[in-house]
Amino acid sequence: MTFPAIGISLGDPGGIGPEVVLKALATPSLLPEARFIVFGDRRVWDANREALGLRLEAPLHKGDTVPSAPGFYFNDTGGVSGDAIRGQSSGENGKSSFRAFEKAVEWAGRGLLDAVVTAPISKTSWRLAGLSWRGHTEYLDSLYPGAIMTFWSERLKVALLSQHVPLTEAMGRVRRGVLLDFFRALHRSLAGVRSGIDELLVAGFNPHAGEDGLLGTEETTEMRPAIAAAAREGIPVSGPFPPDTVFLKALDHPEKMVVALYHDQGLIGFKLAAFETGVNTTLGMPFIRTSPDHGTAFDIAGKGVADPRSMLEAIRLAIRFS
Amino acid sequence: MTFPAIGISLGDPGGIGPEVVLKALATPSLLPEARFIVFGDRRVWDANREALGLRLEAPLHKGDTVPSAPGFYFNDTGGVSGDAIRGQSSGENGKSSFRAFEKAVEWAGRGLLDAVVTAPISKTSWRLAGLSWRGHTEYLDSLYPGAIMTFWSERLKVALLSQHVPLTEAMGRVRRGVLLDFFRALHRSLAGVRSGIDELLVAGFNPHAGEDGLLGTEETTEMRPAIAAAAREGIPVSGPFPPDTVFLKALDHPEKMVVALYHDQGLIGFKLAAFETGVNTTLGMPFIRTSPDHGTAFDIAGKGVADPRSMLEAIRLAIRFS
Repeated sequence: MTFPAIGISLGDPGGIGPEVVLKALATPSLLPEARFIVFGDRRVWDANREALGLRLEAPLHKGDTVPSAPGFYFNDTGGVSGDAIRGQSSGENGKSSFRAFEKAVEWAGRGLLDAVVTAPISKTSWRLAGLSWRGHTEYLDSLYPGAIMTFWSERLKVALLSQHVPLTEAMGRVRRGVLLDFFRALHRSLAGVRSGIDELLVAGFNPHAGEDGLLGTEETTEMRPAIAAAAREGIPVSGPFPPDTVFLKALDHPEKMVVALYHDQGLIGFKLAAFETGVNTTLGMPFIRTSPDHGTAFDIAGKGVADPRSMLEAIRLAIRFS
Repeated sequence: MTFPAIGISLGDPGGIGPEVVLKALATPSLLPEARFIVFGDRRVWDANREALGLRLEAPLHKGDTVPSAPGFYFNDTGGVSGDAIRGQSSGENGKSSFRAFEKAVEWAGRGLLDAVVTAPISKTSWRLAGLSWRGHTEYLDSLYPGAIMTFWSERLKVALLSQHVPLTEAMGRVRRGVLLDFFRALHRSLAGVRSGIDELLVAGFNPHAGEDGLLGTEETTEMRPAIAAAAREGIPVSGPFPPDTVFLKALDHPEKMVVALYHDQGLIGFKLAAFETGVNTTLGMPFIRTSPDHGTAFDIAGKGVADPRSMLEAIRLAIRFS
């Protein structure tokens, strides 16, 4: 039996990333057996572990392969010069979190890992470190232009046609060819991970999904043709549905996923339904990437009060999809 | 003492409007004392009342004034030729629901009513009746161009900068002058009804509210100047906030209201938070108009199972704001 190899990057050393990773891994009864390889600064890990009083063993692992036995391993990607500064952004923190993430992604790209789970980084830290990517998403996009952002919670699942672009630009992507390609790629990715999703509900663009052209034409000229073409290929996609009720259609139906046309159309609904237990999952790459749906939470870093549920869900989903 | 005069239009005779009005008025212990004047087809009212087995007395009231004693009155605006058809749209149904609504609005415009509560109409019925307004909102807009759409539920309150227009057109309204005028009118209207709202949280336009211009410029060029100008006038308005988290900021804070820039930005959040107990309230007119946040529900009309909670809330809010 081969156990899934799950890389976990520790995130910004000044944030709650190390804490939630430690807390999540310290509840092995909630985790399937796997080979967990944590990428990060060992000193940050040890300091957090001691502060939290956790006895989690994760031996340092050197070399360029993943051990075959299940358990916890640590890949020390080095870190900040001097001590990490808790509770704030810094260029040193940015370098540290990027190095851990970059190495985990590199290993995954080479097929050594099935999935990468990313603890939150600080975009400000990355900028202070002189990095040209705004965050995880943009870095992955640069390596894998077909990456697809999806969001998972117990009550609601959402996929985004576009993510971090101005709204006017996002609207320009609502074209039949772009939509058809997206439906195909999303369907293939969901099937590839045996996601259990068997119905894609596409949100309309205009109020009431255009109301037969009275409130806008994009549904008629771009969306319906793309949905019809995808359906003819056997992709289980329907819509466009009125954006303000499509989320209620999918809520509490584990096999349904809403396809949202732009960042906030999807995430307003998702964040209200999932509160802080959602998981961000990147599909359409040779490996899975998941991350919790929260940030560095500098204001509570180092206080031992961070809630690890979203990280735990991110790890469980990474294993399930591997 | 003068009791509020509340007009109630029965809505489409084929839908659940008459049923939810009857059920709501039949729970007087949940309603403050007021003068309730129901506008509609008396035969539809009687048929529904008998089917539901309710003993609610509402004497026919003729003439052109509102009685001064609290209680229930009925203004027969006539109705369909032949019997109303349950469970579907028709031109006759459209004429009937329009006549009731039109008369209630006319009375309110003349100062005879403090508020109008509207049961759901069918837009298809109105179209079949040859009416040129798509629905209640468009009719009110044509009479009162400054009308403001707001949405109220226990957990969340939302105001909409624009409503039933194509998304590209809605985006064109995000201009500093339009925004400033809207903040002024909304603030004045909320104060006028002693709404209890003392904080307006404005949703941004782009993902992450533009992230300092990286993800779009409307926040910088249009929104911040308008918010700053309004704040200088003493209007308690702040933002722009990231659209996907501004609803969480306002959730369960009864004194906060989200200002959304377009229909679905506001209503995706509102419908998830309020489920089916929300109330649609039109401000910025000489009288208040409220309506339940559901439609005709033709599929369950006449079965006696319609949930009157949203209608009850609509009536209570109309009284509170009168």
